[in-house]
Amino acid sequence: MAAWARAVRGLLLDISGVLYDSGGDGGVPIAGSVEAVRRIKASGLKLRFCTNETQATREKFVKKLQGMGFDISVAEVTAPAPAACRILKERSLRPHLLVHNDLVPEFAEIDKTNPNCVVIGDAAENFTYANLNEAFRVLIGMEKPVLISLGRGRYYKETDGLKLDVGAYMKALEYACDVQAEVVGKPAKMFFESALAEMGVPPQQAIMIGDDIVNDVGGAQRCGMRALQVRTGKYSHE
Amino acid sequence: MAAWARAVRGLLLDISGVLYDSGGDGGVPIAGSVEAVRRIKASGLKLRFCTNETQATREKFVKKLQGMGFDISVAEVTAPAPAACRILKERSLRPHLLVHNDLVPEFAEIDKTNPNCVVIGDAAENFTYANLNEAFRVLIGMEKPVLISLGRGRYYKETDGLKLDVGAYMKALEYACDVQAEVVGKPAKMFFESALAEMGVPPQQAIMIGDDIVNDVGGAQRCGMRALQVRTGKYSHE
Repeated sequence: MAAWARAVRGLLLDISGVLYDSGGDGGVPIAGSVEAVRRIKASGLKLRFCTNETQATREKFVKKLQGMGFDISVAEVTAPAPAACRILKERSLRPHLLVHNDLVPEFAEIDKTNPNCVVIGDAAENFTYANLNEAFRVLIGMEKPVLISLGRGRYYKETDGLKLDVGAYMKALEYACDVQAEVVGKPAKMFFESALAEMGVPPQQAIMIGDDIVNDVGGAQRCGMRALQVRTGKYSHE
Repeated sequence: MAAWARAVRGLLLDISGVLYDSGGDGGVPIAGSVEAVRRIKASGLKLRFCTNETQATREKFVKKLQGMGFDISVAEVTAPAPAACRILKERSLRPHLLVHNDLVPEFAEIDKTNPNCVVIGDAAENFTYANLNEAFRVLIGMEKPVLISLGRGRYYKETDGLKLDVGAYMKALEYACDVQAEVVGKPAKMFFESALAEMGVPPQQAIMIGDDIVNDVGGAQRCGMRALQVRTGKYSHE
């Protein structure tokens, strides 16, 4: 075993495409992943789940995973919506939300009157023509448009096939309004750093495990972590 | 009158935002524009309508404008769909179409079986979550994705407000598939050149008149034309 491997004290685990494949039916666990989480926890390694999932509150999402047999709790999950809420409060931003209905409760305590920014997440079926135009109009109507994106993923795999992720819609709004989105979630450095802080492990002693070469592997490496890419989820040889 | 102005022999006129404001109700002519077209034609100047309009066949679009009182015929209109059809035929491309229902007849003679490219236009209400995912899957499934976009406009103004244009959705697909779209329509040089050729007027003797600083004015200038920006349509002081 190499010296760096012996020094590893913490793991960051992506969820979608690593632990389970999502889908309209709730999704299905990936073979061996329930047992893998159990073994990691038994090994004494610190573990944190680091997801860009924004189709549900963490509560709802974790309940689903528990139902599949995963040993996981809300307190172990680092996700974009709570991180975005911190930013909104710090900067007195009042969001117009273009997110999945099931994510809305995460923003319950945030003032949303007279919006001065747009927050976009993986809204899935809420990415209608009307909703995109609405978010665009709010944004273009601002003197200085502020767009906050919960991730910048290109696409992900569900049980019934590939789906466009929030990053594609973020790009549409960026282009239409000539702005650059502020990304909360992977691959933002701050997002990984906050997950590491919550584990109390420095980047040199942590490994990120994910299926996304850019958002999981690249993002973690830029923070000084090592990263492993699994061959499940959206992994492709190219 | 300046020497260059005396030398002008032809005008290219944008339509949406210049001659009329579009909208769900069919739109309304902009004050003075019906008379302006009549006077240009009476002056002996050559005139060509140069539009990125892709929400209807040229036939249907021209009929609507005639109904508003404009002196315009199908043969006078340069539009992206016929230009795209020429490219599809030349390169034996079979498109998956993500366009407005009313534009589909322009592609009637094109083989659309077993698609090896995606053609995107201003699909408006057809820009559903399902349709965008479908176009994305076709594209990402190709060994070398080919995306042809009928324009690259950011947004346009309808009677009930601003709407995202094809360029925003083009960017979403470009990002998701890591490809660069080939743009047919303004501001593509070939598009202006073909309109000039149809008038038989060299660029130095032509003026483009439009409301879009990038697609009308910038595009025309890069072809060696002069251009005028009107203060109607999506014009904004910024």
